Amino acid sequence: MQRNGVMECTACRSRLVAPSPRSVSRAYDKHHNKITSKFRALKFLLVVGDCMLVGLQPILVFMSKVDGKFQFSPISVNFLTEVAKVIFAIVMLIIQSRKQKVGEKPLLARSTLIQAARNNVLLAVPALLYAINNYLKFIMQLYFNPSTVKMLSNLKVLVIAVLLKFIMRRRFSVIQWEALALLLIGISINQLRTAPAGDTAFGLPITAIAYIYTLIFVTVPSLASVYNEYAMKSQDTSIYLQNLFLYGYGAIFNFLGILGTALFQGPENFNILQGHSRATMFLICNNAAQGILSSFFFKYADTILKKYSSTVATIFTGLASAAFLGHTLTINFLLGISVVFISMHQFFSPIAKVKGDKPGELLELQDTQNHRHLILLL
Amino acid sequence: MQRNGVMECTACRSRLVAPSPRSVSRAYDKHHNKITSKFRALKFLLVVGDCMLVGLQPILVFMSKVDGKFQFSPISVNFLTEVAKVIFAIVMLIIQSRKQKVGEKPLLARSTLIQAARNNVLLAVPALLYAINNYLKFIMQLYFNPSTVKMLSNLKVLVIAVLLKFIMRRRFSVIQWEALALLLIGISINQLRTAPAGDTAFGLPITAIAYIYTLIFVTVPSLASVYNEYAMKSQDTSIYLQNLFLYGYGAIFNFLGILGTALFQGPENFNILQGHSRATMFLICNNAAQGILSSFFFKYADTILKKYSSTVATIFTGLASAAFLGHTLTINFLLGISVVFISMHQFFSPIAKVKGDKPGELLELQDTQNHRHLILLL
Repeated sequence: MQRNGVMECTACRSRLVAPSPRSVSRAYDKHHNKITSKFRALKFLLVVGDCMLVGLQPILVFMSKVDGKFQFSPISVNFLTEVAKVIFAIVMLIIQSRKQKVGEKPLLARSTLIQAARNNVLLAVPALLYAINNYLKFIMQLYFNPSTVKMLSNLKVLVIAVLLKFIMRRRFSVIQWEALALLLIGISINQLRTAPAGDTAFGLPITAIAYIYTLIFVTVPSLASVYNEYAMKSQDTSIYLQNLFLYGYGAIFNFLGILGTALFQGPENFNILQGHSRATMFLICNNAAQGILSSFFFKYADTILKKYSSTVATIFTGLASAAFLGHTLTINFLLGISVVFISMHQFFSPIAKVKGDKPGELLELQDTQNHRHLILLL
Repeated sequence: MQRNGVMECTACRSRLVAPSPRSVSRAYDKHHNKITSKFRALKFLLVVGDCMLVGLQPILVFMSKVDGKFQFSPISVNFLTEVAKVIFAIVMLIIQSRKQKVGEKPLLARSTLIQAARNNVLLAVPALLYAINNYLKFIMQLYFNPSTVKMLSNLKVLVIAVLLKFIMRRRFSVIQWEALALLLIGISINQLRTAPAGDTAFGLPITAIAYIYTLIFVTVPSLASVYNEYAMKSQDTSIYLQNLFLYGYGAIFNFLGILGTALFQGPENFNILQGHSRATMFLICNNAAQGILSSFFFKYADTILKKYSSTVATIFTGLASAAFLGHTLTINFLLGISVVFISMHQFFSPIAKVKGDKPGELLELQDTQNHRHLILLL
């Protein structure tokens, strides 16, 4: 963070005189190539992994159904997913702590854990928002039909961008705003076909309550993602520790949710493992893996790349089902994916980049005592 | 035209040593502001006029029908339109020649006319292509249903851009190419609704002849427009004289077409005025006015601005019919016009402009003898 020419290191809270733009740029250039190519490889792996997991999802959902219906309570899936993520975080923490060199702060020491827990208390916010969102999804289906819900979900892209602008102080160029609008439009065009025939007229119910629910439905998960990105990036804690807290909070909030429904709707909701099969376990593992990948997106890339990645995954699923299952490609789909690809090219095109420093990027600087500092450009 | 550092004035064929980039830019800057604001006002008027005429079209078509059918031969409309345009050109020529100052080359002198006719022989090419296109429109309807024809027509935008690149040597930036693709996609999305329900699958007939007809159907009118722009801009003849030749050639080719059909299909096709009413006369005048406006577009603006202008006109017609006739706006329409407006903003955005000189623009230079030369940047 930079205030009046003084920067504070997010790791050790030491204060540094802000380097002149030139020295920043020199320090930046020095590490830039190394960091850039490493970051690029990481981002590429994130996108590929995300595409595979998102592509696997519909197959697992199909396999989890018995006679076309789910036998298990959907709330239990969220809780079990969070538990799976906590287990993964603990395993990764143990592996990482064994790999540590002598002299490094031990990851699993009591003092490290307490300090990390204190620094990352912010992660409770996205965890709570995600838990609320899981509950909202059910409510929304009371007010809108599923295809309208799907359409409204697309608005998240723009809400996320607005929140990134205000929470993360990210600047977007006009071309990038237009690219995001195009992404929203492209996804919507793709979905036009899935809407029932004749239902193409803009038939939103006009009740005030529906508008309010829409606003909440779109804002809550967007805020969760952006706040998650903010919380992950603003602390220099190891991502494995951050994951532990994030998923821990998630498990707690979801457990409270189950407890609540058990209290109000009877204790039969409390049987978490009822109706699960091997296929649903795979589904839960897939959900968990997607969640874990999200953390890496938020820490090392951003929410928008995550959105693009999911969209590309959906497109590939469509193309694959056309190639292998003989589904016909509709003209909607072809027009929609063209818009999405143009949008993607424009968003990441160098010409669209805002000039100046890149907010949201991590800058690695060395001070006079040769301590390394990671500085988040805000 | 510039070859090996020597430029030839397109008006008087005198050769000039090409000015250094700096002196071009100085000469350019000097006239730039004056020319730019004049051109901008002209372009604005062109777009507004075009929007009004295109918007009036469906009303006049509706009024021209008797019991839902046309009573007149469609070929006769083309011929009568060309005749109306010739009359307009002559009237304008007479008005212009009366306004001429002493010492100016008289517009209606025999020598001026002969030289202009010789210089503008190129205009016969677009006139012939337009006449062929009018005939092709009928043939296309044998192979495709009207909504497919409408969809295929959208491809013209891209074909025009490719032709502008190769004939007019216009350079487009990547963003501009993407903007043109978006225009094509936006118009197509608008039209999805007009396709009969269930017909959204990409159902083109796969016969080779259909592909060839499509290629011709899309290329001929695009080539006509681009060649028209080239012919209008490459000669420094007064636009009123150029119009006279363009429309004259048009009338001749259309008359030959009528003569041909009369020969092959019997003399009843020769009765040009049969079945016309006052409404059809208005329709013909509207067609003629659109044609005349096109010439001004080609001379002072370009084919792409014309395309955008027509698209905006269609959008306003849709919005107006929603506002006044209570038609519901479909979600297709809303998504489509969003894409079109983003495309338009991107195409004309300064960030999308190709750096360097602007091909296709007219440069006004003075030589050492203080003669003014108009040079077309190629």
